[in-house]
This record gives sequence, structure tokens and C-alpha cells, in this order.
Amino acid sequence: MSGKVWGKRFAGRTAVPALERYNASIGEDAFLLQAEMEASRAYALGLSSAGVLDGDEAAAVLRGLAAVGRRLAAGEDLSRFEDVHSAVELLLIEEAGEPGRKLHTGRSRNEQVVTDERLFLKSALPAAAGAVADVQKALLALAESAPAAVMPGYTHLQRGQPVLFTHYALSFVWALERGKDRIADAARRLDVCPLGSGALAGSTVPLDRDALRVELGFAGLTENSIDAVADRSFILESLGALGLVLLDLSRLAEDLIIFASAEFGFIVLADAAATSSSLMPQKKNPDVLELLRAAPGRLFAHYARLFMVLKGTPWSYNKDLQEDKEPLRRGVEDALRALEAAAAAVRCVRPVPERMAAAIDPSIFATDLADVLVERGVAFREAHGVAAEAVRLAESSGRRLDGLKPDEFRGLHAALAALPAGLFDPRRSIERKKTAGSTNPEMVRRQLKKARALVDGSG
Amino acid sequence: MSGKVWGKRFAGRTAVPALERYNASIGEDAFLLQAEMEASRAYALGLSSAGVLDGDEAAAVLRGLAAVGRRLAAGEDLSRFEDVHSAVELLLIEEAGEPGRKLHTGRSRNEQVVTDERLFLKSALPAAAGAVADVQKALLALAESAPAAVMPGYTHLQRGQPVLFTHYALSFVWALERGKDRIADAARRLDVCPLGSGALAGSTVPLDRDALRVELGFAGLTENSIDAVADRSFILESLGALGLVLLDLSRLAEDLIIFASAEFGFIVLADAAATSSSLMPQKKNPDVLELLRAAPGRLFAHYARLFMVLKGTPWSYNKDLQEDKEPLRRGVEDALRALEAAAAAVRCVRPVPERMAAAIDPSIFATDLADVLVERGVAFREAHGVAAEAVRLAESSGRRLDGLKPDEFRGLHAALAALPAGLFDPRRSIERKKTAGSTNPEMVRRQLKKARALVDGSG
Amino acid sequence: MSGKVWGKRFAGRTAVPALERYNASIGEDAFLLQAEMEASRAYALGLSSAGVLDGDEAAAVLRGLAAVGRRLAAGEDLSRFEDVHSAVELLLIEEAGEPGRKLHTGRSRNEQVVTDERLFLKSALPAAAGAVADVQKALLALAESAPAAVMPGYTHLQRGQPVLFTHYALSFVWALERGKDRIADAARRLDVCPLGSGALAGSTVPLDRDALRVELGFAGLTENSIDAVADRSFILESLGALGLVLLDLSRLAEDLIIFASAEFGFIVLADAAATSSSLMPQKKNPDVLELLRAAPGRLFAHYARLFMVLKGTPWSYNKDLQEDKEPLRRGVEDALRALEAAAAAVRCVRPVPERMAAAIDPSIFATDLADVLVERGVAFREAHGVAAEAVRLAESSGRRLDGLKPDEFRGLHAALAALPAGLFDPRRSIERKKTAGSTNPEMVRRQLKKARALVDGSG
Amino acid sequence: MSGKVWGKRFAGRTAVPALERYNASIGEDAFLLQAEMEASRAYALGLSSAGVLDGDEAAAVLRGLAAVGRRLAAGEDLSRFEDVHSAVELLLIEEAGEPGRKLHTGRSRNEQVVTDERLFLKSALPAAAGAVADVQKALLALAESAPAAVMPGYTHLQRGQPVLFTHYALSFVWALERGKDRIADAARRLDVCPLGSGALAGSTVPLDRDALRVELGFAGLTENSIDAVADRSFILESLGALGLVLLDLSRLAEDLIIFASAEFGFIVLADAAATSSSLMPQKKNPDVLELLRAAPGRLFAHYARLFMVLKGTPWSYNKDLQEDKEPLRRGVEDALRALEAAAAAVRCVRPVPERMAAAIDPSIFATDLADVLVERGVAFREAHGVAAEAVRLAESSGRRLDGLKPDEFRGLHAALAALPAGLFDPRRSIERKKTAGSTNPEMVRRQLKKARALVDGSG
Repeated sequence: MSGKVWGKRFAGRTAVPALERYNASIGEDAFLLQAEMEASRAYALGLSSAGVLDGDEAAAVLRGLAAVGRRLAAGEDLSRFEDVHSAVELLLIEEAGEPGRKLHTGRSRNEQVVTDERLFLKSALPAAAGAVADVQKALLALAESAPAAVMPGYTHLQRGQPVLFTHYALSFVWALERGKDRIADAARRLDVCPLGSGALAGSTVPLDRDALRVELGFAGLTENSIDAVADRSFILESLGALGLVLLDLSRLAEDLIIFASAEFGFIVLADAAATSSSLMPQKKNPDVLELLRAAPGRLFAHYARLFMVLKGTPWSYNKDLQEDKEPLRRGVEDALRALEAAAAAVRCVRPVPERMAAAIDPSIFATDLADVLVERGVAFREAHGVAAEAVRLAESSGRRLDGLKPDEFRGLHAALAALPAGLFDPRRSIERKKTAGSTNPEMVRRQLKKARALVDGSG
Repeated sequence: MSGKVWGKRFAGRTAVPALERYNASIGEDAFLLQAEMEASRAYALGLSSAGVLDGDEAAAVLRGLAAVGRRLAAGEDLSRFEDVHSAVELLLIEEAGEPGRKLHTGRSRNEQVVTDERLFLKSALPAAAGAVADVQKALLALAESAPAAVMPGYTHLQRGQPVLFTHYALSFVWALERGKDRIADAARRLDVCPLGSGALAGSTVPLDRDALRVELGFAGLTENSIDAVADRSFILESLGALGLVLLDLSRLAEDLIIFASAEFGFIVLADAAATSSSLMPQKKNPDVLELLRAAPGRLFAHYARLFMVLKGTPWSYNKDLQEDKEPLRRGVEDALRALEAAAAAVRCVRPVPERMAAAIDPSIFATDLADVLVERGVAFREAHGVAAEAVRLAESSGRRLDGLKPDEFRGLHAALAALPAGLFDPRRSIERKKTAGSTNPEMVRRQLKKARALVDGSG
Repeated sequence: MSGKVWGKRFAGRTAVPALERYNASIGEDAFLLQAEMEASRAYALGLSSAGVLDGDEAAAVLRGLAAVGRRLAAGEDLSRFEDVHSAVELLLIEEAGEPGRKLHTGRSRNEQVVTDERLFLKSALPAAAGAVADVQKALLALAESAPAAVMPGYTHLQRGQPVLFTHYALSFVWALERGKDRIADAARRLDVCPLGSGALAGSTVPLDRDALRVELGFAGLTENSIDAVADRSFILESLGALGLVLLDLSRLAEDLIIFASAEFGFIVLADAAATSSSLMPQKKNPDVLELLRAAPGRLFAHYARLFMVLKGTPWSYNKDLQEDKEPLRRGVEDALRALEAAAAAVRCVRPVPERMAAAIDPSIFATDLADVLVERGVAFREAHGVAAEAVRLAESSGRRLDGLKPDEFRGLHAALAALPAGLFDPRRSIERKKTAGSTNPEMVRRQLKKARALVDGSG
Repeated sequence: MSGKVWGKRFAGRTAVPALERYNASIGEDAFLLQAEMEASRAYALGLSSAGVLDGDEAAAVLRGLAAVGRRLAAGEDLSRFEDVHSAVELLLIEEAGEPGRKLHTGRSRNEQVVTDERLFLKSALPAAAGAVADVQKALLALAESAPAAVMPGYTHLQRGQPVLFTHYALSFVWALERGKDRIADAARRLDVCPLGSGALAGSTVPLDRDALRVELGFAGLTENSIDAVADRSFILESLGALGLVLLDLSRLAEDLIIFASAEFGFIVLADAAATSSSLMPQKKNPDVLELLRAAPGRLFAHYARLFMVLKGTPWSYNKDLQEDKEPLRRGVEDALRALEAAAAAVRCVRPVPERMAAAIDPSIFATDLADVLVERGVAFREAHGVAAEAVRLAESSGRRLDGLKPDEFRGLHAALAALPAGLFDPRRSIERKKTAGSTNPEMVRRQLKKARALVDGSG
């Protein structure tokens, strides 16, 4: 049996191997096999309800599909088929005989492809969201692992203001929460069943599309048969949502790589998350974090490829659309692998509060110094200038900001004649923050509780 | 007055023009001016409630901001300022004097930037959705303009099955509906107020963040001050949503360009949507459609640029993030211009039903021929083969499919001894389609009604 | 034996499978195996010359490598190794014992990776250039297959001026020639040997780098050991060069798909380059051309991914760089497959001169009409206007341009009182072209000869 | 006068403002004005030689063009024109009258566009190469500014082996040299003159294309008129070459940002290259470096946009190609600005050798320790293991590697009973490197000399 379902169109056709190879998609769409089986089973039921298959035929087809399922589970070689759709149909014919030759009645591969792809994403996206939630859990545990640790908060990789390490770790939990939301939106939007759309015009079989929908667990129906076979934006939206998650994680990875350097030393990686060098025996390299830093490149590439393919391609189905398979499969795979590694890597992070504390040099309290002036009635913009001068004075004389003498402070501004106690104390600095969502320990406690509830609820 | 708010940090600083130019963003962030004014006004109210500004000071600041607003409306030159935030603060100080110097108390540009960007998108995204709805309206009008026209439905740019032109035109309405949904999701997700986040640690001023939120019309609050200043994924999501709309329109444009060719001739473009050639006097070029075909390149480029910028960039605020301005502004602008042009271009399309009808050659009914066999009990896969042989027989003898003689049909399969009336009639072919969402005229009527309700409701 | 060469660094290390999997690259770098073997052999010779290996040891290592080669040829399972470099070294130790443990003296995986990658491209890029040349040959044969065929030359997919089909087909030969040049430039630039660079600082072994270079057939040496292990731009340049070739071919594919439509009919595809439909028996789909239209998406994606990975990544070697493997391997593979398919597909194209001729409607001679006026002393800009009016007059009265009556022509402009013979003859139109590189048959003959010489020379 | 040169084609045309705006390119192609003037002047000479313009007419056109040049220099408003080509032609007609109406004889905007673009790049690319050379000069000066400084060489952002700071700085000079080579290759390949190609078929005017080439300073001629108007790959190649330069610089920027952190402190930025914070008075932010880190995003975006536009677009000229203007102009502009800033920023870098020295903790000599064993006959792979154990022993007991006692070393391996003098001396470590291109001071001296010669030669 030829691996093509359309063999009779070109009678004397001489195959050119380079073209056959180039055209075949069986190597790329095998990941849709389970979805194709489900959809074929549902379609057989639909044909039965529509009277195309009588009771015996329907039973034969369902039995045949079950037999095909067993062959597939046993590792049936599919390489002789053009694609996964031909494979299931032709194997079914082998198993069920004549009734199997009726399965494709009023059906087209164009609608099968998108039905399978939507089924695939209906299960893959929640799995991805679950993997994101697992990274959140790892971050929550990290956040809770050093509740008293205060670190310099950085902007521009320069020390800015002290923040709780817990606050820092929690910040990524919220970023990932947005990521989960986007994945959920994509999953919701693509949850429509295209079966019954035919090649592009609909089907002459009086299929009950809603029954097919229910059978396959879709939430809704596509509204237009041409749009149904033409649309691939649902894949791009899914890849985009996954890509943004990895993009945020690449920024976490960058931070952690820097924090794990000897110079920062804010964290230590468990050996499991590190590798050494083939040459330099002392090396402890954060390989996994580096791969996570690079990981959004994969999702971006899958997104870019499919976007490129769709640009300016005629509407409805064109073979160009076959090029959606690898981005779809690899997008999901690459995201899942990266998320799994990210959760494991975060669990390998051990904070080193003493190195964090040591990095809080007093100039970091310059804003606090300006705040003193503000509290004492000086306009902020002037206070900022006075604090800047204090920093310069200390720097130029090789001293720390808290090493300036009382009369030097007074000389900078009369209102600095006496400094409040604890001005240069990191803990007091974070306690001076007042706003909701700030690094103030009380606010962080509330934030942690909220994040915990959110993530535990989603697990 | 220097155009920098931080002038005192580097006392003897000698500016290097190449670096000053490279660093300044005023040329790129001027589009945020209105949002900056709104946010500054709200912040002044917040400082007043928090007791940082007393009644007189608050009044002076609000009057000052109003005066700044008038200067801006009158075309104040902002090129001397570093960015839009410095501009408003320094102009305010010019207008309001000392109280103006208090406006920045407990505030950071880091949070201002994202507040402004979110305010901008809160108004730009609904505008974009409105522009999408206008394209939908144009498509609906087009769909209704030739209710009886039947055209070949194409897959692979080969004639597939007859479809109603109305069905074809409607298919894009559904694609655009998804686009609007994505824009709405992005708008909803970004609708949170970051004010009160400070540089990254929160604010020492006891601001009522919820009051600020209400004042600015946000739906919610950011939950973590570090995340608040670090996140830019909301811009990428917005650009992604806009890009997918243009991507679908590029496929419409490709179709229309092909349909407007002399060889197809399915549509005629009103002269307003065409240009001629500088050299060839007879040319009538679909320039606008060609630009629409290219348009997703712009949105993809903006998306790619910002994605690239964020990849591996440390968390919280880094200057790299300034590179979000042009993608944000241009993304919105380019999408709006393209959508506006798309609506106008669709309104310039005149269908030519007679050319469509002429393109329906009888081989397009090969599937209908197979369906006849199916109805007469032949398994589809065999029926498909018989129909393919019929096509080959006609082709090889230089005839049309409907030119085969009765005994030739019978010779192909006994069940074809007599063909049903109207087998080669396009209208009958579309009426034979049964499924919801198909090109069956009754189904298309329902679809049109639903689409009309949807779009009129969203206008 | 552990599959890691650095096993002793982390004594009590407990492996986390998710991290091990994420970190391992053996699945992705196996394509470098041959290069790694060559480079290891050369390095062994280098160590021998440097006195690190004595004669017996060197002989043992070379024998060991030969044995490893045999095991690899026999399908040795490499999945237990971390990467291809560890695999070869550890297999060598199995084969050669103690001397094998000396092979890595003064060597680092950092330099091995880039040595292997450069060796790979040194053979892959010429192969790609050869595949481009084969497409050129197919195009030349196509160009020669219909020497008398005249088709409408299109701009904006609107008929512009008549051109020889040969001229059209040749135009892609020149585009591909640029592609070959770019590939050659990339190949030349990357042809430098990094061995001897160590991890990043150079080697303590007094290696004769030039001897290593000669042994491996490189044209030059890297100049700086840090740059040597850090650089990956040579891969991007290679991917860029390959991508531009596929980009041009995607435009050819678009044209051919349109030309193969029933409406144009300028070409017929041999059955081998077409597929049919699972549902619609009459379809003859140009699947291979559609895949070629989509093909640049792959190369762009590989390019984008690696560009993304490198953006902002610290200099010298970082694990992020491992993410260059798949873009490199797949970039070459995908390009080769597409080129092979393109050559085969072009060979399946049969021009249909009569359909081309039928598409030359007289309005295409409007420029020729303007030229008549120019020859008779009318300024071109006025002549263009007169010709445009002639077109409008014909259009508005439902006639062809050559259907206007003599007095109508005269009415448009006195200089048109008598038209030259053959004005509406396609052959005469192309003969009226005068410039080198034009579609004038004599010029095309010369062009063909030149292109033929070029391509035959490069084969 | 209408701003369109083809006004007579559509007599009763009612303009739709949204479409006019969308279609006009004058805002985007004004940067080609100078090239358009040059090309028009050359074309007038060509028409004169071909006898289309007689002596008086040619003189009138040349005088007219000169007058147009003066109006343009005086700031002529071009917004009423469709594009730069129409602008020059219509202004010429205003100035020169009837002879001006002959300038477009046998010419098409299709060829004008590419002629202008090639002329633009012929001057822009050498300017970009010059800007790259200036960054090289700044790096050379930096390399020479601290000849004795030894820093830890990093891989994975972990300390690897000591290297000379000079060696580090020089490494980027070689990367940039490749960048210049690529720019030069792109410039060479695009240096062909398309004039005489007409709209796509060639010209009926017997133009001496070679004379036009000489007049405009091109090195060669395009070979096929269709290819001449269709090709845009020369722009992509140029953008690609510029992008790779910025990509390497983004890695330099990342390093320098990290080196400028308080924790590393290897460099200090002059105030001119830093900015402070609106809120935090102590901040000294490396804004320019952060923008450079982000800069490749711009070039990648321009590249991606044009690549996207060209994908699957029909061959020859289509309006989609107008979308090449902004990527071309902005690609050059953005690259030049970034390069200019990069040179200035590098000149603001002051190395801090004492902080570099302080960062060389003894574990960095673990490879040197292994080398001792190798010299004493131990196989490298075993030596590596012994050194790794030494590192672990020191780490686990909270000591530095050089704090292990002699008997501990001996306990690890008998061959370590006595360590060579200077084993833990950075200077000695770099002197132990032997290979060409290594960080050995003598090799670095030679490298510096070679780099200096190269860059001074190219300046």
C-alpha cells in the first residue's frame, strides 16, 4: 500500500526522492499521533450519527482504531507514510477493511491538522502553566529561606537601596504569575473545535459539530470553515506566552549568575547545578543558569519562524503551514525543559546573607539622608543635591558616607546638624519604607502570604 | 537651569556630546508627555494627602502643572531636557518655585516611566481595537456587497471547491475578532498602577496607593516594587497582539493582490487604492495592499527589538529598558496606520462576480462527484480514486470534467451510470454543504447575522 | 567510567536528573564528531612535537584514536557522555590507557568547540555553495528550454512590459551568484585555527600552532586566545549567507506558485513536484514550492536564536554559547535540503509559452506607445500622459488598446496619426530594448553565455 | 502641480487621505535626496549622449538640476511630493521647463530607487567602517593604558586564569576587525550600477550603461534588468554586517558594566559616561554602556523587518520593497550613533589594576598546579583530578589554595612534595603560557604591535 491517500491522481508519477523527502512531514508531526487517534475516533462517532457508517461499520472502525492504537503503542514504524493523518487512515484500513475506507468521508486533512494541534495545546499549555507554578514554588521556598537577609537592591547593576532578599525573590513570583495568565488566555482562546470544516468549504456530511465538540472536550466551535483551516495565530499566541515566561527567567538567570560570582558571592549554587571545567580544576560554573539565560532564544526563534512563514501567505490552507509543526512541538518541549530546569536550579540556590550584608556600603543610604532633610522641611530636589554633595565629599576623601564628621554634615546643610539614630542601618532603612508592595518587612509579610495563597491554589 | 535633575552628583563633569546625545531620550519619550502630566498631577494629590505638601504647596503645584500644560500646548521646546520626566519636573519648578521642588519626594523615574507607559497603552489599545473593528465593518460591508457571488475556494492557490464570496470575506472577520480579544486581554493585564514603587524598594512617603490608582483610573495595583520597575513584558504582549492582527491582514492583502491581477480579475480596486507607474502608463498597482502585505514586518521588528533588549538583562531597572520607547510608540502608530489603511482599502474593493464564476471550471466538482459515489454506498477512499481517474481522463483528452460522456462515467464506476442533476452547478454545490460554519447559503446567513451583531456591538 | 571529564571537582555531588538532562549537549553536538576526531588527532601530533607525548605515547594515542574511530563507525552509543569532546577523550582512554589521559594536556573544551565548528563549516559551506550552483544549473536549463517564449513581465503583480521567459529565468541565476559569493566570503573569513588558545589564556604547552593549522588545513590562525574562544559571529555570518539564498528562492517559489495557478497557467509542474488532496481528487498542489516559500523562516529562526543568545552575553566562553550547536547544524542541514529540493523542483517546471503569449494584452504596450511619441519629439512626461489617456479611453469603452481607431489615436496626439508597424507585437517590443542587461534577445543571448560560463566554471 | 508623476492614469480619482498617507514615502526616503540628485545628473548626461536630449536641452536640465539643488539646500518643503524621485523630477520641470519633462525618458523609479540606495551605501558603509576603526583605536589606547595590570580571565563569569588586561582589551580589536571586513565585503558586492534597467525590461534608449557607471563611480554593472530592480539582499547583507559589530560590542558592554560594579571595581567610568539617579543621590550609572548592550536589538530589528518583507514577495519590483527605506536609513544611523558612543565610552574607561589584582585568589592557579604535575610526568587527566581535590580540601577547610601545607600537597600527590617558586604569582602564571596569541607578555607585545599596525593603517 502506498503511503499516500491520494495515489490515483497522478498515475504515471515518477517520484523524485529529494522532493519526496522534502515534502513528507511524518518525521515532524508524529507528536500529534495521540490527538489524531482521538479525533479520528470522535469523527467515526460523528459519521455514525450522521448515518454514513451503519452500526456494524462504526463498530468495525472503532475496533480498528483500537487495534491501530495497539500497533502504535507497540512501536509501529510510520516512516512509510506521508504524514500522521495518512498513517492512521491507512493503518485503519489495514485493520478494519472496507469500513475504514469510509472514515475520510467529508473530512479533510486541512481540518484534521488544526484539530490535532488544538488538542495538543489543550493539554500542553496547562502542563506548561503547571511547570511555571513549580518555578514559583521554588522561588517562594527561596524567599522564605532567608527571611532576615538584607541585600543591596540594584539598578543599573549599581547598589541602589537595601531590600529584603525575600522581597527580591518574590518579585519573580509576580512576573511568573502574569506568564501563567497569558498561557491560560491562549489556552482559552484556542479551545474551539474545527471539525466539520472540510477542506475549506464545510462538509456535505450532516455532522453534528456540537456533538463532536463535546466528544473531544472543546469549549466552543470555529465559526467559519475557511478561517478554521487558515488560522495559525493560536500557535503564535501560545509560543508568545511561553516565550515571555522564559524571557523573565533569563533575567533571573543573569542576576543569579552575577550573584554567584566570587566578587558578589550573594548565593552559592549546590554542586548539582554547577559543572566544572575540562581544564581548570577549581571552576564551579553555573551552566544551567547560563542555559536559562539563553533559553528565550529558542522560543523567540520558534515564534519568528512561524511568523515569517505566515507573512503574506495566501489565506486558507497552503503547504507553508506545515512549517508550523516544529515550532509548535519544539516550543512546548523547549519551554517545559527550561521550566523544569529553572525550578530545579532555583532549588539549588543557597543565599549567603553575610555577603549581602557586607555589600551594603553606607553610600547606599544617601536617599535616606535626603529623606531626613525632606522630613525636616527641605524640598526634595534640594535635599537630593545636598545628599549628592555628601557622597562626593566622602568619595573624594576616601571615606565612607558614615565616616563624615558631624560638622561636615552640618556644613552641607544646617538641618543635618544631628542625624537620626540608625540612619545607616539597613534594617531601619527598609522599615522606613511605607508603601504597599514595598520592601518594608510588614508589607513583605503580607505579600508573601498573598503569593503563597496564589501559588498553592494553582498547584 | 540644567536639563538634568541629578546635576549635583558629578560636580566637575565635562560632557562628551556623543555620549549626551546617545543617552538622552527626550526625542523618544515625548509621546508620554500627556501621561506624565496626568501622573504628576495625581502624585501631587498623593503627596498632599500624605502631608508632604501642605494646602498652599499643593495648590501651587497644581497651578504650576496647569501652567506647564499650557506651555506644552503652546509648543514648548523640550530638547534641552534629558527626558520627559525631567522636563515636567523642571518646568514645574520654573512655574511653581519651591513647592515644585517637592514633587519628586519619594518618587523615582523608574516608576514614572512604567506608569506613563501603562497610561499610554490604556488609551492606545482600545483605540487599536476600535481600528480593528473598523476593518471588520469594512469586511462586513464587502461580504454583503455580492451576496450571490460564488468563487472558487483556493487551497495551495489551486481551485478547491466553490464558496460564497460572502463566506470568504467573513472568514477574516473572525480572525480579526481574535485579534481584538488579544488586545483586550493585554489591556486588562497591564491595567495596574505602579506608583509608590520608588526606584525599586518602595517609598518612604506614606502614599495611599489605592487613591493614586483611583485618581489615574487603573483597575489594580502592582504587588511588588521591584517587579513594578523591572517588568516590560506588558509592552511585548501588546506588540504581540497588534502584530498578529497585521499578520492576518497580510494574508488578506496577498489574496487581494492576486485577485486583482489581470489573470484572476476577481476584484477591481477603486482608483483611490491604486497608483500608476512612473514609466508604464497602463499600470494600476495595488500599492496599499502591497504595503499591508509587508506591514507585519514592522510589528515583528518592534517585538524582536524589545525582546532582544530584555534577554538576559538584569532584573529591576537598567538603562537598556529605555530602548522600549520606540517599539512602544511606533508599534502603536504603525498598527493604527496600517489598520486605518486596511479599512479604507477594503472599502475600495469591488467584487467582480462574473470573473469568479468564469473561474469555476468543472474539475472543481470532483469532490462532488466523489460524494455522489459515497451517497450511493461506495467507500470514500474508493470514491476519491474514481473521481481522480475521471479528472485524469478529462485532462488527458483535453476536455472539461463535465465533458465526459455518460458511458465514460459509467466505465469509471457503475454507480455513475446516471449523474444527479446540477452536479456541475456551483450554487448546488454550496447548497450541498451541511455543516454549521460551512459555505452553505443558509449557514452563511446565520454567520453574517452573528458577525454583524458582534461588530456592531463593539463599534 | 563517569561521562564527565571533571568528575573530581564535586565529590559528594548528587545529580539532579532535570539538570543533568538540561546541561548535556551530546544530543546536539554529535554532528561534530568527525571534526573532533580530526582535531584530536592533530592535537596528539602537536603534543608529540612539543614533547608532551613521547614516541610510544603518541603512537598509542594515534592507534587509540583509530580504534575509537572504528567504534564510532560501528555505532558506539554516546548518550552516556556529557558532550562529544568528553566522549572522544574518554573513549580514547578506554582504548589507549594512560597515554590517552595526556591528550587534554594544555587543551580546553572551549577551543575544541570552535575548532570543530570551524572544521565543520569549512566542509559544509562549500557543499552549500555547490548546492546553490546546482539550482543555478537547473535555472539555466529552464532558461534554455523555451528560448522564444515571451511573457508579461510583472511589477506589483500587474502586467508591465513583455520580457523573454529566458530573461526571467536568468534573473535568479544572478541572485544566486551573489549568494555563492557571500557563502565563499564567510568560508574564507572563518578559516582560522583556534587550537592553542586554551580555556582563554593560551596554553602552557609550547605548541607549534602553525603546524596544527597546516595539519588541519586551515588558512590562518586566530590572533588572540580570548577572542578565539569567545567568537561566534562566524556562525551568524554563515547562517546569514545561507538565509539570503533561501530568501531569494522564496520569491522564486512565490512566482512559480502563482504561475502554476489555473488562472495564470504559465507553467506546468511535473507530477513529481506536486501532490494531491486527501479530499479533493482534482487538486494538483505545488507543495514543494510552498515549502520553499516558507524555507527562509528556518534560516531566519536559526540566525535569530543565536543572535539572541549572544546579545549581552559576557565575553570569552559562557555556557550560553552551547546554544550555537543546533542553529549551526540545522542551519546547514535545512539549507542543503531546501537547495536540493529547489533544484529538483525547478527541473520539474515546464513553461507553457502559449499561455504566456495569451496574457500579453495590448495595454502592456502603453509604454511603447509613449516611446513612439518620444521618438517623435514629445517630452516623455507628456508622452506618458497621452498613453495613459489612450489606456483609459480603451478601458472605458471596453476595448483593447489596439482596438482604438486611427482617428482616436490622432485625437489623443497629432504625432500618433500613424502608428509604426508592429507596435503591438511582443517580439518587436523586446527587440526595441537597447540596454545591456535588458530583455533584448541579443542581450539575453550574451547574458546566457556569461551565466553559463560562470555556472559551469563553478560546478 | 500634483505631487504625482502619473496623475493622468486615473482621471476622476478621489483621493482617500488615509490611503494617500499610507502610500507616500517622501517622509522615509528623503535621505536619498543627494543620491537622487547625483543619479539624475548622470542620467541627464546619459540621455544627452544617447541623443534624447540635444545640447541645449542637456544644458537646461543640468542648470535646472543645479537650481533644484539650491532649493533643496535652502530647505525646500518636499511634503507635497509622493517620493524623492517625483520631487526631483517635478522640481526640475519647474526649473527647466520642457527639457525637464524629458528626464524620465526610458527610466523607471524602480531602477532609480536601487541606484540611490547603492550610492547611499557606497558612502555610508565606509563611514561605518571608519567608526569601527575609531572604536578599535579607543580599545588600543585602553589596552596600552595599563600594560602591567593582570586580571582574572573569566569564563562562565567565574575566575579562570590570570590574563593581562591588555590582552583582554585587545581581544575586542580582533572581533571588530572581522566586523570591518564584513562591511567591506558588503560594500564591494553592492558596488554595481543598475541604471539602464528600466522598470524591469531594460530601456529603449540606447544608454551607454558603462559611461553611467563611470560617472557615478560604480565598480561594475548589474547583469539582468529584472534582478536589478528586484534585489534587496544587498541591504540585508549590509545590515547584517553592522549588526554583528554591535553584537560584539554588546558583549563588551556587558563585561564593562559588570567590571564597573562596586563588587568588581575593575574599572572606573569617567563621569561623562555615567549618569546619576533622579532619586538616589549616590548612584553612578553606566547608562551609555547599558544602551550599548541593548544596541544590537536595533540592528536586528531592521534586519528582521526587511527579511520579513522580502519573504515570499513576488520577484521584480513590488511596493512591499518600499519598506526597505527605514531599515536602510535607520540601520546606518543607529550603527553610527552606537559606534560613536562606543568609542567615546571606551575612552572613559579607567582600569583599576589593584582591584584586578585583589580578585586573583589563589584557586585560580589550580590549572598551574595541574601543570606542575604534568611537567613531572603525571597524565593531565589525573593531574586535573589532583588539583581539583586540592581545591576542595582548601575550600572545605576555609583556606585559600596557597594556604595548604606542604604535607597536604604531598598527601594529594607525591609529585607535589615541593612546589616550584612563584606558583601562585599571577605574573609568573601568564609568563608560563607559551602559545602564539596567548596572554604571555611577549606574545601580547607582538599582538599589540600587529593590531596597532592594522588599525593605524585603516584609520
